[in-house]
Amino acid sequence: NDHFKIAVLPGDGIGPEVVAESIKILDAISEAFHYKFQFKYGLIGAEAISKTGNPLPEETLEICKESDAVLFGAIGDPSFDNNPDAKVRPEQGLLKLRKELGLFANIRPLKTYSSLIGKSPLKQDIIEGTDIQIFRELVSGIYFGEKFTEENGEYAYDICKYAKEEILPIVHMAFQEAQKRRKKLTLIDKANVLDTSRLWRKTCQEIAAEYEDVELEYMFVDNAAMQLILNPKQFDVIVTENMFGDIISDEASVIGGSIGLLPSASIGEENGLFEPIHGSYPQAKGKGIANPVASILSTAMMLDYLQLDLAANKLRESVEHAIEHKYVTSDLNSKQWYSTSEVGSFIADYI
Amino acid sequence: NDHFKIAVLPGDGIGPEVVAESIKILDAISEAFHYKFQFKYGLIGAEAISKTGNPLPEETLEICKESDAVLFGAIGDPSFDNNPDAKVRPEQGLLKLRKELGLFANIRPLKTYSSLIGKSPLKQDIIEGTDIQIFRELVSGIYFGEKFTEENGEYAYDICKYAKEEILPIVHMAFQEAQKRRKKLTLIDKANVLDTSRLWRKTCQEIAAEYEDVELEYMFVDNAAMQLILNPKQFDVIVTENMFGDIISDEASVIGGSIGLLPSASIGEENGLFEPIHGSYPQAKGKGIANPVASILSTAMMLDYLQLDLAANKLRESVEHAIEHKYVTSDLNSKQWYSTSEVGSFIADYI
Ligand SMILES: CC(C)[C@H](C(=O)O)[C@@H](O)C(=O)O
Ligand SMILES: CC(C)[C@H](C(=O)O)[C@@H](O)C(=O)O
Repeated sequence: NDHFKIAVLPGDGIGPEVVAESIKILDAISEAFHYKFQFKYGLIGAEAISKTGNPLPEETLEICKESDAVLFGAIGDPSFDNNPDAKVRPEQGLLKLRKELGLFANIRPLKTYSSLIGKSPLKQDIIEGTDIQIFRELVSGIYFGEKFTEENGEYAYDICKYAKEEILPIVHMAFQEAQKRRKKLTLIDKANVLDTSRLWRKTCQEIAAEYEDVELEYMFVDNAAMQLILNPKQFDVIVTENMFGDIISDEASVIGGSIGLLPSASIGEENGLFEPIHGSYPQAKGKGIANPVASILSTAMMLDYLQLDLAANKLRESVEHAIEHKYVTSDLNSKQWYSTSEVGSFIADYI
Repeated sequence: NDHFKIAVLPGDGIGPEVVAESIKILDAISEAFHYKFQFKYGLIGAEAISKTGNPLPEETLEICKESDAVLFGAIGDPSFDNNPDAKVRPEQGLLKLRKELGLFANIRPLKTYSSLIGKSPLKQDIIEGTDIQIFRELVSGIYFGEKFTEENGEYAYDICKYAKEEILPIVHMAFQEAQKRRKKLTLIDKANVLDTSRLWRKTCQEIAAEYEDVELEYMFVDNAAMQLILNPKQFDVIVTENMFGDIISDEASVIGGSIGLLPSASIGEENGLFEPIHGSYPQAKGKGIANPVASILSTAMMLDYLQLDLAANKLRESVEHAIEHKYVTSDLNSKQWYSTSEVGSFIADYI
């Protein structure tokens, strides 16, 4: 198969700008490798609310369901954040999309680039050589449990619920990834307080025997929040539930000093969604300064997912070439920098 | 009033060793300032389980209820952590004590010591001058909501519930603290996903008018986990719910590079509990290497709470004197160091 249907959801803030560079890259890839990518665009987030009233219009969902993979920009708009009464929010679009496509595993690789190590808020000897893969459960837990606010606003609740069968697939995935790497898996939970965490721990224990070559370690989330900064090199593969994963993976993203480089993949049984982790970054919108590399490396994860290994490797090589030659945006070099589209074109040309 | 009843709960791991130094300090204080402290000891945690089967024996609770303040060591034992089926756990003792005493506000001051700044995993320019006060809600939320595990272990849930009246007292407290400081309050929540977070945001908004001189800011917990490392100086006072507070305050504790120095206070309407944040640290138990300063500075917070301001100031001055003169344990100076009890005696003698 050399023909792929790609749903493209640029979304809010700098989403459209960085996704445009990913498309440029895919055009270069299709020329170099003779694949065909067919792009269908869809609205999502604040953009979709303002045009249709719905953060995930039915049409967008259809486009995604019919696609082989989804390229995603960003979501979120500050005008909604300070209004706790808003009934419709941009984030609902992304949450619903994750659920509808069954994207149960959010995967974030974290590496340090030696040429950028000075940008980190952490000291060089702490972070040098860090290489972590985080697996966050993405379609259950407190995000998707029942929610309730009493009509007079006197109280509210959110239910964190997990079924064993929701835990198993992502834990298997994480164990298998650990087998391909340094053979260590850390489950992050709060098993000294939460029943759901104890269920995670038990489920991991039960299947650990199938992965005897992997060392399984448990860590409380509060301790993990410290250890990630004190000694990030101790981690290989991390697996955790939805809410803890949200916090821990964002915390971990500061280690390398270059959030604008970090990609993510959200994988399900039948589809995958690929998204830079930096979010909508509204302050930078329209200025041509957004770093397109996170979106471009997310595109490389999409190529992995589509099993286009040669193309994925070529793309990563091109990105490293650009970074080594300091062909980067202003977040990485405030003295000499290039625009979003210049960096995208440089990488595309190298391919 | 110059006579105080102090409940002393040394607990597990290094708890007894560091609490012993706090008692030494209080003896020095009572000599210097002519106060009388009457100590009553109680069992709690793993220690209490092994002796009574109960992590919080009724007798301990009584001692605490009759006291003016509680000095607490640490809780937790690794033998319980890898056993998700254990019905009785050390942590239950602390959680029940917090609830029974109504200790709704956990307060953690975070400062960097200039003589120790090199110990931080973060770069000096990032952290220099950091001065944060964290207020964590301590007796509600997912910690105390209903919990359930289906009997075959097929699923489990934990309910995060908040009433407006549980949120108000700690938010007022945090606003008032901000008024005494740099007049900025940050609410950390996940209002783009959780109903309880939206209730927190609304409640803060509602009373903000009473504190017009304080700037109120909202931050999502995932972003906060990044911002604490990227730019900790942006924070003055932080207020947040129980679970987020557990994670965020432990994460923040790494900033100064000396977790062994950090105290905490847990305050209620009628009692206060004072505890070092480092936990039971079982690997160090009985070796005489535990840093007593966090426990001693928690004792200073107890003196604040008892409105013994002169004594509290003298105690803090003595601690700073010890640190400046490098009279510290091995975690702070691996070349020349003193034992737990030597450091405690040095500080006591100075008083
Ligand atoms: C936008 C928000 C709902 C989302 C989340 O919390 O999952 C984001 O923070 C993320 O991590 O993708
Ligand atoms: C021991 C544990 C239950 C406790 C908590 O999570 O509250 C501890 O981590 C703390 O922060 O005091």
